Amino acid sequence: MDGVYINKVSEHEGSEVKIYGWVYNKTHKGKLYFLMVRDGTGMIQSVVFKGDVDEETFENAEKVTQESSVIVYGKIKEEKRAPGGYELQVTKLDIIQVAEEYPISPKEHGDSFLMDHRHLWLRSTRQHAILRVRHEIIRASREFFDNRDFVLVDTPIFTPSACEGTTTLFETDYFGRKAYLTQSGQLYAEAGAMAFGKVYTCSPAFRAEKSKTRRHLIEFWLIEPEVAFYDLEDNMKLAEEHIAYVVQSVLENRKNELEILERDTKILENSTPPYPRIHYDEAVKMLQDMGMDFAWGSDFGAPDETALTEKYDKPFFITHFPAEIKAFYMKRDKDRPECALACDMLAPEGYGEIIGGSQREDDLNELLSRIAEHKLPQEAFEWFLDLRRYGTVPHSGYGLGIERLLAWICKLPHVRETLPFPRMLHRLTP
Amino acid sequence: MDGVYINKVSEHEGSEVKIYGWVYNKTHKGKLYFLMVRDGTGMIQSVVFKGDVDEETFENAEKVTQESSVIVYGKIKEEKRAPGGYELQVTKLDIIQVAEEYPISPKEHGDSFLMDHRHLWLRSTRQHAILRVRHEIIRASREFFDNRDFVLVDTPIFTPSACEGTTTLFETDYFGRKAYLTQSGQLYAEAGAMAFGKVYTCSPAFRAEKSKTRRHLIEFWLIEPEVAFYDLEDNMKLAEEHIAYVVQSVLENRKNELEILERDTKILENSTPPYPRIHYDEAVKMLQDMGMDFAWGSDFGAPDETALTEKYDKPFFITHFPAEIKAFYMKRDKDRPECALACDMLAPEGYGEIIGGSQREDDLNELLSRIAEHKLPQEAFEWFLDLRRYGTVPHSGYGLGIERLLAWICKLPHVRETLPFPRMLHRLTP
Repeated sequence: MDGVYINKVSEHEGSEVKIYGWVYNKTHKGKLYFLMVRDGTGMIQSVVFKGDVDEETFENAEKVTQESSVIVYGKIKEEKRAPGGYELQVTKLDIIQVAEEYPISPKEHGDSFLMDHRHLWLRSTRQHAILRVRHEIIRASREFFDNRDFVLVDTPIFTPSACEGTTTLFETDYFGRKAYLTQSGQLYAEAGAMAFGKVYTCSPAFRAEKSKTRRHLIEFWLIEPEVAFYDLEDNMKLAEEHIAYVVQSVLENRKNELEILERDTKILENSTPPYPRIHYDEAVKMLQDMGMDFAWGSDFGAPDETALTEKYDKPFFITHFPAEIKAFYMKRDKDRPECALACDMLAPEGYGEIIGGSQREDDLNELLSRIAEHKLPQEAFEWFLDLRRYGTVPHSGYGLGIERLLAWICKLPHVRETLPFPRMLHRLTP
Repeated sequence: MDGVYINKVSEHEGSEVKIYGWVYNKTHKGKLYFLMVRDGTGMIQSVVFKGDVDEETFENAEKVTQESSVIVYGKIKEEKRAPGGYELQVTKLDIIQVAEEYPISPKEHGDSFLMDHRHLWLRSTRQHAILRVRHEIIRASREFFDNRDFVLVDTPIFTPSACEGTTTLFETDYFGRKAYLTQSGQLYAEAGAMAFGKVYTCSPAFRAEKSKTRRHLIEFWLIEPEVAFYDLEDNMKLAEEHIAYVVQSVLENRKNELEILERDTKILENSTPPYPRIHYDEAVKMLQDMGMDFAWGSDFGAPDETALTEKYDKPFFITHFPAEIKAFYMKRDKDRPECALACDMLAPEGYGEIIGGSQREDDLNELLSRIAEHKLPQEAFEWFLDLRRYGTVPHSGYGLGIERLLAWICKLPHVRETLPFPRMLHRLTP
C-alpha cells in the first residue's frame, strides 16, 4: 500500500499523492468532474479538469458510479470551502471496479431495508460517526480502568448452570451436557476482585428476551468493574467518574462525529460529577407527585424511567431499590433490610438505565439464606460461596451497557445503530 | 475505601497508612509475626512486634490464617531485603474474616484439583503474572491499532448459517430458528474494512472441536485486523509489527511478571522484524530434509510445526499454502493457482501457529466458483458477495489467537492457564 490516507493529507499539501478509495458521490459541470472520494479515514473532493488529464482519466471520471473503487493521483491543495479543508487536483484516475448500481441512495429508505443492507449501510457518514463514538467509549473506558491499575478479567461466555431460570438464557449442547451463554460476567468478576483487588471485564453478553423495544438487543456488550473493599458510595463514585471520563473523551476526540450526528452537546458538557443520588423512596414519591400510578415495591418501567429522567440534566443514580425486585447477590441495607444496596445510573433525555450496580452480599450465611429463598441450586454456587469462606470482604461493582450509553451520547432513536451487526428479536442477518 | 494500595506504598514512605488485604502467608519468631499481606496490586511484608502493638493486635496476628481478610495499620519503611523493597511496621491489625482452612497450600497439587479451584487459584503469584501479561497483550494490541487509525468493529457472536458445516459449531435456538456461535469475525470484518478502510476486532470465538491438546480451547479470544488495499506482503508487515509491538510492551511493562514466570527473555528481545517468510514449498523440503514423512499438499500437524519452529529463534511466516487445505475466501497466487496467498505466523520454541492470515479473494466470479467448489450455500453468502459487487478492492487480514500468543510469551506448558476460567473439552466449571 503506497497511498496516502485522507486523514493525513494536510501533511502532503502541495505534493503529488496517490489515494486508494471509493467514490462516495459525483457531480459534473462542463469540463469538470467533482468526485467525493472516501477511504474510510475521511473524504476528499477530487477535481478532474479535462484540460489537466489524459483522455482515459476523463472517460474514467465519466464512468465511475457510486461506491466504485478507484485510485486517484493528484496534488493536494488547501481549499477552505471543501469538506475537510483540502482538495485533490486530479492528474490521473484509475478504476479498480465500476460498482453495480448501489442499492442505498440519498433518498429515504425504511429501517428494514437498511438493516437488510447493513453490510453496505456501514459505509454511510452517519454510521461512521456512530461507530467511531462506540470505539471511543470502549477505548476511553479501558484507559480509565487501566490508568487506575484495574486488571482485565475476560470472564467465560459458556456457563454451566441456569442459575436464574432458563427463560432468558440461550442454551447449547456442550459435548453432551448443557451450557448456557452468559448474561453477565459479574459472579466470575467477583472471584477476580478477590484475587486482583480491582478488575474489569469488556465482553459480549446475551439475553433471550422477547422484547422488541428501542432499548433491547439480544447480543450486547458489557463493561463490568468489580472492586474489593468498595462500598455502595465508592461504587457510585467510580461509576460517575467513569461515565464523566468517557463523555469528556468523546467530546474531545469525537467532536466532528457529534457534529455529523447534530448532537447538542450542552447536556454532555454538563455531565460532570457529582451525579444526583435519589433514594428509591424519593423516586416513588416523585412519580406519585407527577400523578403516575406507582406503588412502593414495583420496578420502574420504561415510562417511569422516562418521567424521572426528565427531572435531571445529567446522569443520576437511583439507590436502595426494594430487595424483592433485585438479584439475590445484593447486600441489604442494615437499617432498612427490605432495601438492597443497589445503584442504577439513568441517563437523562428519556434514555433511562445505562448502569446497574450494587454492593454485594459478603456474608456467607446471608448469602446461603438468599439462595434458599430464591430457590436456586446451592451446588452450582459452591465456588461463588467459597469467595465468602476464604477471606470475604465488602465489595461492589456494576455493569455498563455500552450500547445504551452510546445511544444516549449520540441521542439515537434506537439501539439498532449501536453495533455493526445488531442482533434483535427478528434480526439475525446479515 | 480510605486505604493505600500496596503498589503505591513508595509514595508514603515514613507515613502511617492503612492497607486492606489478605494474608498470603505468615511466619512467627518469638515476639514477631511476619505477615505477607497481598491486596491484588502487590504484596508487603507486615511486621507485628509485640512491644509495638496492643494485646488485641498481637492476638489477631496469632489468629489469622492463609487468605484471611484484614486491615493493617502502620508505618511504611524502606527495606531493601523485603519483597517489593518496603515493609510495614504494624501498629494495629483488624481482622475482617479468619478464613477457613485454605485448600491450596504451597505443596504440589494436581492440574485437575487446581482447575476445580480456579476461582481461588487465581490468587496465586504465578496466575497473577500470567493474567497481567494477558492484559498487557490486549492493551498493547488495541493501542497498536488505535494509533494507526484502525476502527474497532465488534462483530456478532450469533451467526445465521452453518457456512462450513456444523461439526465444529455450537448451535442454539434463536426464537425458533437456528443460530450458530461465531468461529471468527472475519467475514463481517471484511464488510467493516470496505466501510472504514482499516478495522480490527477483539472478541471471543468458539470451536466445538473434540481436541484435548495443550493448545486447544473451546472458547478463546481473537484479534482480527482487516485492511482494504493491503496485499499479502502488507499483511505480513502489519502482523510482524503488531507482534513486535506487543512483545516489546510486555518486556517493558511486565518485567516483574516475566521474572516471576522465570521466562528467559532473550528470544523475546530477539523478536524484532523482519520475521522470516518461508514458502510452503521450502517448508516441505525442510521437513523432508529432517527425515520427516511429509508430502506436498498436506497440512502441518503439531509435530511438523514443532520441528519447523526449532529452526528459528524468532516468530516466522509460512506462506502460499496449498489452496486445497485452506479456506474458500483466500485469493490464489496468480503464478501458482494451486497455492493460496496465505500467511501463518508460527512462534518459536515449539509453540507453532499464533496467527492465520491471507489476502482475500476480491473477484466476484472467482469467489462464486470457490463457493460452488466447496459446496457452500451461496444464498448465505449474498451479503458477503455484495462486497465484491460494490467497489471490490484487494484486501487482507489475519486472526491472532490471544491465548496462543500468551502461552508462547510466558512459555506456558498448556493454554489452560491463559484465561481466568478456561473452557475445554472436559472443563465447563467453575
